[in-house]
Amino acid sequence: MLRTGETICAPATSGRGAIAVIRISGPESLDICKKIFFPFSNKTEIEKQKGYTVIYGEIRSENELIDDVLVSIFRAPHSYTGEDSAEISCHASPYILQRILELLTENGAVPASPGEFTRRAFINGKMDLSQAEAVADLVASESQAAHRIAVNQMRGSFSDEIRILRADLVHFASLIELELDFGEEDVEFADRNELEAIVRRVLKMANDLALSFSLGNAIKNGVPVVITGSPNTGKSTLLNTLLREEKAIVSEIPGTTRDAIEDTAIIEGVQFRFTDTAGLRETDDAIERLGIKKTREKIQTAAIILLVIDINNTPDQIKNTLDSVRRTISGSDIRMMILANKIDLASTVKREEIRKLISLLQGESLSLISALTGEGIDILKEELLRYADDTKKASDHVIITNIRHYHALLQVTDSLERVLQGLREGLQEDLLAIDIRHAIHYLGEITGEITTDEILENIFRNFCIGK
Amino acid sequence: MLRTGETICAPATSGRGAIAVIRISGPESLDICKKIFFPFSNKTEIEKQKGYTVIYGEIRSENELIDDVLVSIFRAPHSYTGEDSAEISCHASPYILQRILELLTENGAVPASPGEFTRRAFINGKMDLSQAEAVADLVASESQAAHRIAVNQMRGSFSDEIRILRADLVHFASLIELELDFGEEDVEFADRNELEAIVRRVLKMANDLALSFSLGNAIKNGVPVVITGSPNTGKSTLLNTLLREEKAIVSEIPGTTRDAIEDTAIIEGVQFRFTDTAGLRETDDAIERLGIKKTREKIQTAAIILLVIDINNTPDQIKNTLDSVRRTISGSDIRMMILANKIDLASTVKREEIRKLISLLQGESLSLISALTGEGIDILKEELLRYADDTKKASDHVIITNIRHYHALLQVTDSLERVLQGLREGLQEDLLAIDIRHAIHYLGEITGEITTDEILENIFRNFCIGK
Repeated sequence: MLRTGETICAPATSGRGAIAVIRISGPESLDICKKIFFPFSNKTEIEKQKGYTVIYGEIRSENELIDDVLVSIFRAPHSYTGEDSAEISCHASPYILQRILELLTENGAVPASPGEFTRRAFINGKMDLSQAEAVADLVASESQAAHRIAVNQMRGSFSDEIRILRADLVHFASLIELELDFGEEDVEFADRNELEAIVRRVLKMANDLALSFSLGNAIKNGVPVVITGSPNTGKSTLLNTLLREEKAIVSEIPGTTRDAIEDTAIIEGVQFRFTDTAGLRETDDAIERLGIKKTREKIQTAAIILLVIDINNTPDQIKNTLDSVRRTISGSDIRMMILANKIDLASTVKREEIRKLISLLQGESLSLISALTGEGIDILKEELLRYADDTKKASDHVIITNIRHYHALLQVTDSLERVLQGLREGLQEDLLAIDIRHAIHYLGEITGEITTDEILENIFRNFCIGK
Repeated sequence: MLRTGETICAPATSGRGAIAVIRISGPESLDICKKIFFPFSNKTEIEKQKGYTVIYGEIRSENELIDDVLVSIFRAPHSYTGEDSAEISCHASPYILQRILELLTENGAVPASPGEFTRRAFINGKMDLSQAEAVADLVASESQAAHRIAVNQMRGSFSDEIRILRADLVHFASLIELELDFGEEDVEFADRNELEAIVRRVLKMANDLALSFSLGNAIKNGVPVVITGSPNTGKSTLLNTLLREEKAIVSEIPGTTRDAIEDTAIIEGVQFRFTDTAGLRETDDAIERLGIKKTREKIQTAAIILLVIDINNTPDQIKNTLDSVRRTISGSDIRMMILANKIDLASTVKREEIRKLISLLQGESLSLISALTGEGIDILKEELLRYADDTKKASDHVIITNIRHYHALLQVTDSLERVLQGLREGLQEDLLAIDIRHAIHYLGEITGEITTDEILENIFRNFCIGK
């Protein structure tokens, strides 16, 4: 699927704005443009045009005038792809777009596959693989935090970190392999303590990066918040209130079922992914138990649980629900916030009773709210943002958001654990070297220094056309 | 609403492609860019940058890196608007777009209103009003024919025609007004026969242009085809078959009701607008009669009527329907095609009977079809395209598609008719001059040589933002 000899073309914009942009890249870019694009100035010759300049003219096909356009010229290697390229900026009519693309292909260009421009940029050394992946994340980012991670990754801060780790390991490996060359003579070029220090340092950094994934994932896809509680405590009303309050981008996540309704909302620049679950209660009904099982599974994927109780329930009912959730999340670091709902229906005395009840049940965070009237919702949002505060602080460091990187880092940490153990046990150099090479390999996969067609296909097929 | 002193900004693309483009225009364009955009090359200074060049760099706000972007620079008067302008090409993330627009407005730009870029182009003499209107038509054009008219109009072929007419009339008026100056002396500078010849020529051309409107409108909005006939003859099935067969753009036209269902389809580059009507039949039911009245009104807006009859109906039933439609369209130049439907259910003998029946009823165009199986539909489409053939031929001439131009031309022809009558009746010069000035005024309104804020508001508020 590498066809860098060919010249590719694709629309780089979508939708119906005022203008549309078509991208062309490859060795024939300017020759193909010359056949269909005619500058208004007689003096202009496309093939002599410098890079980073714009030409005004018309696209024509024999007798048909297609459009007045601007063509930006880029010359290899100073372009996005590293190849000769052009961008045609035309009027955004579907007919014009279609005709220009037809003319380009009739004159020798081929339609680009998804992500092919960025793939060429990678192949031509304009960016490494994690930077290429950041381009897709950048286009998709909706919140400030997600944007910041993507833009930093595109600029190479993550790649730099990986490259440092890799360089350390390569140095380590070269020392070990030197010993291997002199294997019969039983020399030690590398101080074992120093070696262990290097591995420990790389392991810690790789571990930290891997651990940043859950945070990174929360930033990229939204902090996962699960709303749960007994039936009829007002969970759905709460979800609607949280979503309605935010005038920001709110969309239903496809592929979800009635078992768990998901929606995202951006609160002060931080994206949250709210899931409303079926109610939790002890039951003998088989189908209902299945629903509750699913709720439990969903709870375990959360960063925050909003446990909704009805202020008018009996202390026993409340205690049961609370115990049920506690059992489900015990041992995890999932945070729970208890929301005593329907305070619009309760007396002041009742409110105090609830406070006391909960404090007796152990000091959990408790908010009194009315999902219906909106009372207490602002305080709830502040609490949610307090969690997000960690997200904001954390994003000054390098954070991984990509599951491919996460899996590669797990391989790296596994291999390095084995190296450490080997060093402690005085393992032979050739066996140590295998695990070190393994770690180096996986670090290289992240940045694309080591890659396969299959990896590339997987990455770029998720890009949009024209990127 | 003219605020040419201000610098405006708006996204020029919509939707979520790979890239998005933001337009900036006005005297401060480059100064504002300089505050938020930082070229990667230290040598580049935006304020010294030539027009028609592109700069690569980053958009930054204090400590926040927003995006790596390309900025194209255009210098007055060599830009779309005729003002200093810039186009920022960024990654198409909603967050990035929003932040860049925020930064631009924080630094002194104001959000552009719909069509404001094109309006400035008009005010700065880059194009006349009919050319500006053509820009909107060009963006909206979906068929080859509609595109051709819009692109020709954008290039000024229509304006040229109008300007010639207007120059002739201005010449005429100057002669008449010269006589007025010498009013007491009873001289005739202008040969009355020559004058009449000029007016006749201008009148004929204005008339031809006004007459081209129904064709132009058909090309722009689709050739109006009304499907009618008795109930249960298969009209809806026919509509669905016609639409389904075309893999082209098919969309429901908003604002239509169940009384008349409209849909457009592009057949070989020509857009048709199909309307399915309620059945036609004699009835005493008040509500049904209302439906039939609406059908009759709809029929009168058609260019082509497809009258669907059921091949299994009795000759009397068929004759009644046919007569009813004929009465409705009598005196108009609406074409009728009779479609004998459900031939899948009919014997060969029956088919021949129908043919004979219709030929006896007067030689109308008849096709035997099966809306259900698709038999005969290709022939029907060829027939439809035969009408469109006229559309194709006609579009080599100047054709008007804009109702504003149409109404102005009607004013022009009215005035010129009065001038002709005045010439014949030896009317006084000052009275002739009033009608000539009237005609000149309305020709000037088309191209915008004469205009009011109200006209401009009406035109540009229908543009999209960023155009």
